[in-house]
Amino acid sequence: MHSSGKHYHTIWFQSTSVFMIDQNALPFNFRIIEAKNCRETCEAILNMTTRGAGAIGAAAGFAMAQAFLEAGTDNRDTFVREAKKQIESTRPTARNLFYATDAVYRAGMVSTEAAVAEAQRLAEENVADALKIGEYGNTLIREGARILTHCNAGWLGFVDWGSALAPVYVAHRSGKKLFVYADETRPRSQGARLTAWELAQEGVPHSIVPDNAGAFLMSNGLIDLVITGADRIAANGDTANKIGTFEKAILAKEFGIPFYIAAPLSTFDFSIRNGSGIIIENRSEDEVHYIEGPDQEGVVRRIRVTAPGASALNPAFDVTPASYISAFITDKGIFTPSQLDQLRKS
Amino acid sequence: MHSSGKHYHTIWFQSTSVFMIDQNALPFNFRIIEAKNCRETCEAILNMTTRGAGAIGAAAGFAMAQAFLEAGTDNRDTFVREAKKQIESTRPTARNLFYATDAVYRAGMVSTEAAVAEAQRLAEENVADALKIGEYGNTLIREGARILTHCNAGWLGFVDWGSALAPVYVAHRSGKKLFVYADETRPRSQGARLTAWELAQEGVPHSIVPDNAGAFLMSNGLIDLVITGADRIAANGDTANKIGTFEKAILAKEFGIPFYIAAPLSTFDFSIRNGSGIIIENRSEDEVHYIEGPDQEGVVRRIRVTAPGASALNPAFDVTPASYISAFITDKGIFTPSQLDQLRKS
Repeated sequence: MHSSGKHYHTIWFQSTSVFMIDQNALPFNFRIIEAKNCRETCEAILNMTTRGAGAIGAAAGFAMAQAFLEAGTDNRDTFVREAKKQIESTRPTARNLFYATDAVYRAGMVSTEAAVAEAQRLAEENVADALKIGEYGNTLIREGARILTHCNAGWLGFVDWGSALAPVYVAHRSGKKLFVYADETRPRSQGARLTAWELAQEGVPHSIVPDNAGAFLMSNGLIDLVITGADRIAANGDTANKIGTFEKAILAKEFGIPFYIAAPLSTFDFSIRNGSGIIIENRSEDEVHYIEGPDQEGVVRRIRVTAPGASALNPAFDVTPASYISAFITDKGIFTPSQLDQLRKS
Repeated sequence: MHSSGKHYHTIWFQSTSVFMIDQNALPFNFRIIEAKNCRETCEAILNMTTRGAGAIGAAAGFAMAQAFLEAGTDNRDTFVREAKKQIESTRPTARNLFYATDAVYRAGMVSTEAAVAEAQRLAEENVADALKIGEYGNTLIREGARILTHCNAGWLGFVDWGSALAPVYVAHRSGKKLFVYADETRPRSQGARLTAWELAQEGVPHSIVPDNAGAFLMSNGLIDLVITGADRIAANGDTANKIGTFEKAILAKEFGIPFYIAAPLSTFDFSIRNGSGIIIENRSEDEVHYIEGPDQEGVVRRIRVTAPGASALNPAFDVTPASYISAFITDKGIFTPSQLDQLRKS
């Protein structure tokens, strides 16, 4: 996709470094960060310089490749196994992360070159999968559709195209009129910051809405469908995604609005029977207490937005039971929760 | 209630001025604002220096009394009628505002002194009603209860005690153990700023939660009951309250958790048959785009928190249909929606 007219992937590997769009600086500054080694890439995943299911997967694959590049001949196995654990501890809910470290680790058992090649292949696969999600999802979007999305599962959350937003981009490029309501998505405001920025770059009409406005919008007949991404999907279809997703799914069901999860096959974790097996990452309560942004002079400030001394909870994800999900939009096609066995065998 | 150990009402009238706790400065600064005339009091209501159903009602009554004090003998009727319209245009959803302007206007037809006395009486009634709400509501709170509340319907939202939080304060003072989850309540963050501050002043254990965490908390069995306030309640029980309230009511129903609206009789508008007759105030989208708070040096900054150039929606309220409301906690007792006819006759 494009930033100011120039084509970018959100993350890429060159020589021994991972380069990525700094998603903590967006939408106020567009800059590229270089992570020179596995440790720096892990930090970038942890502090969400790069984020989103697909981008985390690509970053984790690259980090695993970096570990092989850094490993000496002595203790090579111990070194890369330790690195793998390190990478996997950064964002434990993200299925794509484990999918990537497993694949690159297996390739690295053959040779370091194979590890690098596998990491590159996974990133390319990520782009191709997202485009396929876009094409399948486009069939669900009618002319004039008003779409609610939560968090950012756009091209910034992938290497390109996105999951939840890929159908939006494909539909928009095909000439369909549509309108996107982007949930602000507190506490990190990925919707207000990243989704709104992305949609503007692509020229898709949109508006930011406070997370609280979901029932207002739906009860007033302003939403035709909801699409979100996913961080991990259990075998039965229970889906971990950004905190607040479950809430929107309940509302959609209440108002008879289709609720779709868009995700590549690599986000499905068929080893977990249902949502109770998904580990939910708790993040620092400071993400609730403090916000960054530019003041009137354009100087980025970090300010407190909650009562001094107050405590806050910050669960990063919730798990939406499959019964609330109309269908999954995947790179292999569209599947209802009860059809997931077919996807598993694909 | 208390701020730093000293007893305060949120708003009071002295000589010809309205004095109020500046709720835009809280929780970072505690200061009292003086509104010297009707126009200044209207501005304070409009910019939410004073806010919350009960406090708006008291402010509106005082503003109406100020109008009578300011009116000359010529054109007195035209002057006060114009002032009444002015006051009523500030926060059109707030039933208590109209209740107060009507009552003070009627008293002012007798004499200016009667108008001032009526405004004072309404403010005192507001305190007494809130305490009764607290006592009735306390009967619904069991030892160890975990209560979710949205926005601020505490003593800052009234002259004292509050509506939704009055039962919490009465229960807490009676020695019951309880825990309050305070929804952040974007975009103006009344929960994170005012409710958390109030609860800390009173020593009530609590935690701020992002608005997105409702379904997470409820699905994990962490919420025993939900209590919110109301800005206007139609004859059938449909209730306008802060945006996001409807969302929490839907979730509560989904998880079988009691959902209570706490409000005095003065918030009920029996002239409106159902929620479709309630006017919803749309506020500036800048409330979504910009946030104020202190930086590390304690200097209050206003920063942008959304993508530059993006548009945002900012409906201030939503309407929760009566079917989602377990009961109304009022100064006259506890009524289910189907029992509201009894309240009407009280």
